[in-house]
Amino acid sequence: MIIVMKPDATESEIQNIIKIIEENGLKPHISRGKERVIIGAIGDEAVIRNIPFDSYPGVENAVPILKPYKIVSREFKKDSTAIKVDDHEIGSDRIAIIAGPCAIENREITLETALKVKEGGANFFRGGAYKPRTSPYSFQGLGEEGLKILYEAKQKTGLPIVTELMDPRDAELVCEYADIIQIGARNMQNFRLLLEVGKIDKPVILKRGLSSTINELLMSAEYIASQGNTKIILCERGIRTFETATRNTLDLSAVPLLKKLTHLPVIVDPSHGTGHWDLVIPMSVAAIACGADGLMIEVHPHPEKALSDGSQSLKPEKFSILMEKVKAVAEVVGRII
Amino acid sequence: MIIVMKPDATESEIQNIIKIIEENGLKPHISRGKERVIIGAIGDEAVIRNIPFDSYPGVENAVPILKPYKIVSREFKKDSTAIKVDDHEIGSDRIAIIAGPCAIENREITLETALKVKEGGANFFRGGAYKPRTSPYSFQGLGEEGLKILYEAKQKTGLPIVTELMDPRDAELVCEYADIIQIGARNMQNFRLLLEVGKIDKPVILKRGLSSTINELLMSAEYIASQGNTKIILCERGIRTFETATRNTLDLSAVPLLKKLTHLPVIVDPSHGTGHWDLVIPMSVAAIACGADGLMIEVHPHPEKALSDGSQSLKPEKFSILMEKVKAVAEVVGRII
Amino acid sequence: MIIVMKPDATESEIQNIIKIIEENGLKPHISRGKERVIIGAIGDEAVIRNIPFDSYPGVENAVPILKPYKIVSREFKKDSTAIKVDDHEIGSDRIAIIAGPCAIENREITLETALKVKEGGANFFRGGAYKPRTSPYSFQGLGEEGLKILYEAKQKTGLPIVTELMDPRDAELVCEYADIIQIGARNMQNFRLLLEVGKIDKPVILKRGLSSTINELLMSAEYIASQGNTKIILCERGIRTFETATRNTLDLSAVPLLKKLTHLPVIVDPSHGTGHWDLVIPMSVAAIACGADGLMIEVHPHPEKALSDGSQSLKPEKFSILMEKVKAVAEVVGRII
Amino acid sequence: MIIVMKPDATESEIQNIIKIIEENGLKPHISRGKERVIIGAIGDEAVIRNIPFDSYPGVENAVPILKPYKIVSREFKKDSTAIKVDDHEIGSDRIAIIAGPCAIENREITLETALKVKEGGANFFRGGAYKPRTSPYSFQGLGEEGLKILYEAKQKTGLPIVTELMDPRDAELVCEYADIIQIGARNMQNFRLLLEVGKIDKPVILKRGLSSTINELLMSAEYIASQGNTKIILCERGIRTFETATRNTLDLSAVPLLKKLTHLPVIVDPSHGTGHWDLVIPMSVAAIACGADGLMIEVHPHPEKALSDGSQSLKPEKFSILMEKVKAVAEVVGRII
Repeated sequence: MIIVMKPDATESEIQNIIKIIEENGLKPHISRGKERVIIGAIGDEAVIRNIPFDSYPGVENAVPILKPYKIVSREFKKDSTAIKVDDHEIGSDRIAIIAGPCAIENREITLETALKVKEGGANFFRGGAYKPRTSPYSFQGLGEEGLKILYEAKQKTGLPIVTELMDPRDAELVCEYADIIQIGARNMQNFRLLLEVGKIDKPVILKRGLSSTINELLMSAEYIASQGNTKIILCERGIRTFETATRNTLDLSAVPLLKKLTHLPVIVDPSHGTGHWDLVIPMSVAAIACGADGLMIEVHPHPEKALSDGSQSLKPEKFSILMEKVKAVAEVVGRII
Repeated sequence: MIIVMKPDATESEIQNIIKIIEENGLKPHISRGKERVIIGAIGDEAVIRNIPFDSYPGVENAVPILKPYKIVSREFKKDSTAIKVDDHEIGSDRIAIIAGPCAIENREITLETALKVKEGGANFFRGGAYKPRTSPYSFQGLGEEGLKILYEAKQKTGLPIVTELMDPRDAELVCEYADIIQIGARNMQNFRLLLEVGKIDKPVILKRGLSSTINELLMSAEYIASQGNTKIILCERGIRTFETATRNTLDLSAVPLLKKLTHLPVIVDPSHGTGHWDLVIPMSVAAIACGADGLMIEVHPHPEKALSDGSQSLKPEKFSILMEKVKAVAEVVGRII
Repeated sequence: MIIVMKPDATESEIQNIIKIIEENGLKPHISRGKERVIIGAIGDEAVIRNIPFDSYPGVENAVPILKPYKIVSREFKKDSTAIKVDDHEIGSDRIAIIAGPCAIENREITLETALKVKEGGANFFRGGAYKPRTSPYSFQGLGEEGLKILYEAKQKTGLPIVTELMDPRDAELVCEYADIIQIGARNMQNFRLLLEVGKIDKPVILKRGLSSTINELLMSAEYIASQGNTKIILCERGIRTFETATRNTLDLSAVPLLKKLTHLPVIVDPSHGTGHWDLVIPMSVAAIACGADGLMIEVHPHPEKALSDGSQSLKPEKFSILMEKVKAVAEVVGRII
Repeated sequence: MIIVMKPDATESEIQNIIKIIEENGLKPHISRGKERVIIGAIGDEAVIRNIPFDSYPGVENAVPILKPYKIVSREFKKDSTAIKVDDHEIGSDRIAIIAGPCAIENREITLETALKVKEGGANFFRGGAYKPRTSPYSFQGLGEEGLKILYEAKQKTGLPIVTELMDPRDAELVCEYADIIQIGARNMQNFRLLLEVGKIDKPVILKRGLSSTINELLMSAEYIASQGNTKIILCERGIRTFETATRNTLDLSAVPLLKKLTHLPVIVDPSHGTGHWDLVIPMSVAAIACGADGLMIEVHPHPEKALSDGSQSLKPEKFSILMEKVKAVAEVVGRII
């Protein structure tokens, strides 16, 4: 932490800051410049961050210097983490393709879609049994019935299941059926839910919040990791900006940036990221081109009848085209599907 | 819903949309312009919104026209709602002042602060027993012990208690101690939690999410209201923008806008909204000037030692100054404290 | 500038940074922590900011510490600046009210409006002869003819004239007619235009850009001041955020923040800030409540026929109501109108 | 334009809107729903947009339906535009690579860089003779001397020159030396400058403003086109969001979206878009993968000594690596370099 004193800070105000740093078991470093004094506080970062330096008299501002996350950082573990699920992997050379409908609506369409995405080349099947919807009057998901349909789809296709957990009270139930637990964007800072999935022994896809910084995404991953579960897959899915032509602004630069900062796998959801099915293919290809370890794609055999997010769902035929294009680019960047 | 067809949409694409509208029990209205056809879908808005019109061939885009919330809208109930808590009210002529520390840290400081804010003129006491913190390594709150301290503060001061609920599993416990349940900004779209507080018989303060639109805030209120609990107080607490000089950007225009759109009371939290104690007083005065029904203010007797949010906490003396200024402006705009 | 070295930075990388600091005539301060080395570069801030420290090997990041503006800062000049125009002042105890139509459309309406706003209590008359419009097909202003009409309005009412300058080539012409030059939000970083108005001897209203930080606003003011013209009035007029219910998000916290950082007067434009005439009155009152030195209000006798921004214009009768409310709050916060 | 009436709008308010529509030579279409009346205004879009429908009594809001740009739209011209410069093209199958230093600092480094980027495979050379800098105290560019150095670089390498125009007064001079005129992000809505370059016979690179929507970018292109110059190249260069880990948020989804909406070529500037040289390569590859027609890359032989934007500049060796990777992906997506 760097504490910048005001130009007119008194010597006793400066000494007071030094005293506080020392009282907390930290080491102060004082730089006396032409115009003002700058004090560094060196030591245990967790301690440092709990001291509200900028509320002391004479302090202009306090700038944190070090990263607040540890376990998930690339510095903590140099080698990239690859997460095994059955005989698939996320984070290795092999690109992970997670596909399926936004919501599980009924048995028939779900099984049809699962077979189609398997055929198209997906290696994970996704679908929501619990749906976070902006309106209380929208379809909220089938709940446990949906989980059972997902499980049947797995038996029929062999594809491991990815599904969302919204409530810590459902954790046990969802874990019975799912292979990978998804934490949605709106729950990225639902800290109680994070602690809960930190205690289970299943991989977790953590979606970036609509207005969450890269730093906050990593801090939320740290929450999960702090409980023992380090099988975390980060997912860029678009952030909220002033632009309204797309549903969200897909921040692809987050991919190479995250790969630098953390050892965890990073995947991209271009369906929610753009909100338009005709942008999904180009953005999928771009995501793989810049280093993503996988994709999460909404596929629906009849998007115009989907109960949720029809506008951004690909038909199975389009999904096959996507897979071809992604495969070609993956090879060029040294990955396989 | 207005469905704008592409200029080159075929007649059969147009007829298809009309068919879908009619099949869903809605009424189509067709406008054939020079360049393109525009179709209105009239009827039950909940039905309309579930049809992904823009995924049909020939459709350029689909624009929702009506507001998606009902119970909380000003159209549903013309008169402003005033919410009674003991012998206090929020939403009436009388301005509600909710003050206290960010987190309940220990019994001594809490009781000291409660007495001070009562003295200063607050009519509600706030403090967090459960704290949503970005880092898993930061102080997370005292839990039930914190609730008990709050309850003791109420007995000592008579001030009703406002405290945050983060997890549906704590709802019963928190309700035993609290008079008003607070839903934090990061949980504004934790829909399961909203459904839970929708079923209890306590007023709820619903804080606007960091990147939530006014419309989404009202939809989250509608979630609560849809379960029967209409004692909802909306709270503007700053949104996330590109500006970093303040912790958040306090969107005061949300106050008169919300007062127009909904009958629910609207309060403002300038402490989180700005993140700097020296901006809290001017923004409190401004909030009352533009029609807020109350304020939520962080007060701490020793902000420099606070375990959470010290930089934005007022000392009790400053809080007294705030109260004086707020009182003066309240009178001018026809309110009392 | 604080240069944070990577944990694995080599000693020669550290020495290299120290060498660069010294070669530039600056003083290095080295703090060797448990995990990494932090180096402060102390000296002429203008020199420091031109060195791209973070492109050197071994550097993790470089954090600027000091403010990059000088002349406009409160530290440079403790006393608030009051700017005289005829016998009016902006930045003194007296609140400045600048009112008028968005665009000068014709002589008749302009003179009518000028008389009405004078009657209502405005002390400056505004109107655009040159209009920055998103579409090339929208009304672009009357140009010199508009300036002449403004001048006539001044002769009829005695109110000094505020009008926008969009192009350095018009500077001389606009200065012939205008008393205060306005630089619009879209031109806040039109640096050539800033340099131009820095050389003239007229007060300048500098509007905050749609996505400009407080720091950038002050840097743009510094551009003007660097050429000799320090008669600068800063104007908060709303920033661009994800919220679409208002045209912009009026950042009123910018007012007390700017008053702390700079000695220049700060005014608020709630018409552009909100985009809705019915939010203009509450936000005007709030602006004065939190310390604004003045307001800029769009008034049009027939908003529904205005060629620009009709939706956000007040009718003269509403403007009179605004003035009454503003007057009452101004008194309470120790100002007069 | 769709005009949504309030639920309690009176019949005379409805008739008034109809009258206004007809008086302006437009055709009204009335839909009477259960709850409210919706009126469509059909006809000349330029006329429609100038009527402030939402300031009339009884109107809840007015929603524009059609796109406000014409000449630059894909509907106006189905075939993609390819722009010829000497024997290079932008917008054809061949990817355009524009590379060079941010600012022209001196003759020696400029010529060295030009030779290096030519060697690396660039087909255009860029460099700023006029630099828009946030601070008046930063290096502002060499002006005409810089233009002359650029011209010499062209003679030495054969690469056409791209350079920025900041001031309409410099237009003639810059056109003497430059092959392509660049309009910087901060000037995207400097409408006078747009009109000026609309009159010249040189291709124009129009960079997206920091907080400009896709729609506004196209409207600014329309400004240029409206004056006769349709040789416009759009450039995505990152938008301003809440994220601070990157300098801007590079919105790559703008590429396929723009290719759908307009016939104009679209290029990407990942140097400004990310602000970090180590993100430039992955984002360049991603840009080409999702359909960009070209790239604009900052290259500097000694980034650590650059007077502007050193942190985001590639060394020539890194630029060669970039070219190889981009070439490989370009082939896969059916393009050549």
